[in-house]
Amino acid sequence: MATVNPPRGMRDILPADKARRERVLSVIRERYLAHGFDEIETPVVEEYSRLHAGIGGDNEKLAYNVLRRGLDADAIRNAADDPAALSDLGLRYDLTVPLARFYASNRGQLPAVFRSIQIGAVWRAERPQKGRYRQFVQCDIDIMGDDSSRAEAELMVASLDAVDALGLEGATVRINDRRVLDWMLDSFGFAAEERPGVLITIDKLDKIGPDGVAAELRERGAAASAVDAFEAFLRRPQTMEYNPFGERQIRKALPENAPVEIVAHLVGIGEAVAAGRAQSDIPLVFDPFLVRGMGYYTGTIFELAHPSVDYSLGGGGRYDGMIGRFLGQQVPAVGFSLGFERLVDLVADGADAAAQAIVLIHDADVPVAELLAHKTALIGTGARARLERRTKNLKALLERASAEGYTGFATVTAGVTELEVKPLS
Amino acid sequence: MATVNPPRGMRDILPADKARRERVLSVIRERYLAHGFDEIETPVVEEYSRLHAGIGGDNEKLAYNVLRRGLDADAIRNAADDPAALSDLGLRYDLTVPLARFYASNRGQLPAVFRSIQIGAVWRAERPQKGRYRQFVQCDIDIMGDDSSRAEAELMVASLDAVDALGLEGATVRINDRRVLDWMLDSFGFAAEERPGVLITIDKLDKIGPDGVAAELRERGAAASAVDAFEAFLRRPQTMEYNPFGERQIRKALPENAPVEIVAHLVGIGEAVAAGRAQSDIPLVFDPFLVRGMGYYTGTIFELAHPSVDYSLGGGGRYDGMIGRFLGQQVPAVGFSLGFERLVDLVADGADAAAQAIVLIHDADVPVAELLAHKTALIGTGARARLERRTKNLKALLERASAEGYTGFATVTAGVTELEVKPLS
Repeated sequence: MATVNPPRGMRDILPADKARRERVLSVIRERYLAHGFDEIETPVVEEYSRLHAGIGGDNEKLAYNVLRRGLDADAIRNAADDPAALSDLGLRYDLTVPLARFYASNRGQLPAVFRSIQIGAVWRAERPQKGRYRQFVQCDIDIMGDDSSRAEAELMVASLDAVDALGLEGATVRINDRRVLDWMLDSFGFAAEERPGVLITIDKLDKIGPDGVAAELRERGAAASAVDAFEAFLRRPQTMEYNPFGERQIRKALPENAPVEIVAHLVGIGEAVAAGRAQSDIPLVFDPFLVRGMGYYTGTIFELAHPSVDYSLGGGGRYDGMIGRFLGQQVPAVGFSLGFERLVDLVADGADAAAQAIVLIHDADVPVAELLAHKTALIGTGARARLERRTKNLKALLERASAEGYTGFATVTAGVTELEVKPLS
Repeated sequence: MATVNPPRGMRDILPADKARRERVLSVIRERYLAHGFDEIETPVVEEYSRLHAGIGGDNEKLAYNVLRRGLDADAIRNAADDPAALSDLGLRYDLTVPLARFYASNRGQLPAVFRSIQIGAVWRAERPQKGRYRQFVQCDIDIMGDDSSRAEAELMVASLDAVDALGLEGATVRINDRRVLDWMLDSFGFAAEERPGVLITIDKLDKIGPDGVAAELRERGAAASAVDAFEAFLRRPQTMEYNPFGERQIRKALPENAPVEIVAHLVGIGEAVAAGRAQSDIPLVFDPFLVRGMGYYTGTIFELAHPSVDYSLGGGGRYDGMIGRFLGQQVPAVGFSLGFERLVDLVADGADAAAQAIVLIHDADVPVAELLAHKTALIGTGARARLERRTKNLKALLERASAEGYTGFATVTAGVTELEVKPLS
């Protein structure tokens, strides 16, 4: 029989991994709830038209669409000229589009400022590659209805707390503001219509460096004087010295005469996050070249960094325009998405809590009622218990149990009422 | 703007419901883990061919199928004669088909007797109706690789324990065996090829009674002498007196000369479940007319009953043939599925654990850094905390917070370091 595999680009999750994933999720959930966020859930499918309204950016092209039920031969033939007619629903590719839809559907039942937690899988038909899966979990928190920096600060404090609680202390938030980018590109002389393309190039700065960015901008045909001015700015010797976080450092990182209100907004977030962390150091780093891909961001944008890895562990930003697309009324919104799959890989393995876990080894002749009575007695003491029929190679059985997190074993023989539990190394 | 709704037949889950659902899930998960089961997860989509291999019964017709990516106009036109060509994947309609696939994919990494927990959503495009949703959660446990009654007993003991832990003590398990049904129909004189249809009718006994069953069997054209014999049996005065559970009662509930080994199998399960429940009463009820719809059951079948409701809260059975369909090698298997959506409706609302939950009321002039410092200090005491800007109607704000489970409030003014927390309601 042919090998039986999960669908292409997807994976099964076996017990040890699943236990770790659930442990990480419950820590994140518990921390976010403590910070006053409320968990919600939406269906994993949304209407095709909402998923393909231009909000999802490149992810729209990666959506799995659901075949309309009850199509007859004529309807299928007609769809050759209109493939969208084949599909009425699609699997969500992020949690943000569904959240905007949820808010529009349920606003009357939600508080004026609504802090949501969403934990769930999303699907993208990306080219399969190592470590990237077509189904993966996102953990998002969002605040709707608050246009003040209180919202950004709450998101960051809660997320840093969650990451701490996972044993990943020392994380920082790289921060920028789309308005900073707009003002900066304007000050260099890029035309408004050039900016989306220019941002795509700037987003590669980490990878291709100032030379690469300047070359790609010229290739794009961006205004030569603007590219020259930008390149000169990028090559300033002090460009990367933005620490510690504060007004002086932010101004130093930007061209001269940055707008007072945007700088003050960033400084205010930093002070609030430090206060919320009950520490004097501000765990923020200003990065004037942080772009983040999605077109819907309108203000603050940020990414979560940790000294142990060179990729981000999450990120988000303010998207004040999106909910209006669904609701027909503007509602300010800002969100932070933890990179759950990356966090899970970083979190150490480890037994769940303190509970004992006991394997009960028995021969085939022990009556089932006796086995169940022993098992239940052990569970009653707070232990985990598993029955195992004795195999020839008892050592292998015990090693396997130990590897699976079992801490002790006992041998059950017929008629015996007291078990002797021995430790499993 | 038009009303914005979730997809037809699906629903959003708001904070209070979501909190209750997560509480129920974590109780079930914790109990099943204690009983030695291990949680796994599979992708929510499986290959179309596996979902439509005839294992899923009527659910196959209700599957949401996923549109193949990258179809061109010609491929769509050709699919008019072969609609299955439009789809390579589908959303799972149960957790059993994916489990069989999982076991076939990962057998080498699993213990000889594998006890799985699966908790996840499934999708069925059923006609929308009150209380039935097209996306709903199932909680399944299954034991693969054990053909003894130890497996049935472990499933039942673990599931009764989980239901107890949800505050729904007093549940019982209605039990039967497909082999009992086969033998019984044979003894009445129904031909082997008639039995599947006869079982569909018997499954309605609760609803249509003995008269209805006999009439429908005659309508089906079943052998008249068999229907007469069956009707006479159904009309015996003592038919429904099967308590307490034991050999005498099982024999009394069946036609004479029921096979010794099947009766002994049922009696053995009952004794083992009582031992596993550490009680002398056997929490089982023999029901010789319990059918359960799925065609894949091969032995024991059962349903979970609770005195507070007249519908079942879960059920399952032995399906020794199914894994072989995927693996090419027979593996005994038996499963128990809790009716999560029904359980959630029965479980009382109630605050999560003992934690305090405090609303911090503030005016717009309090610096964000002060707000965050107060919030973090409260969270540090183990409380849940939420910031709320003061509104004109403070009373309404506090009532709403109380309804959402908040237990206290404090007013934050600029520059104040000590908060006075007052109880809510």
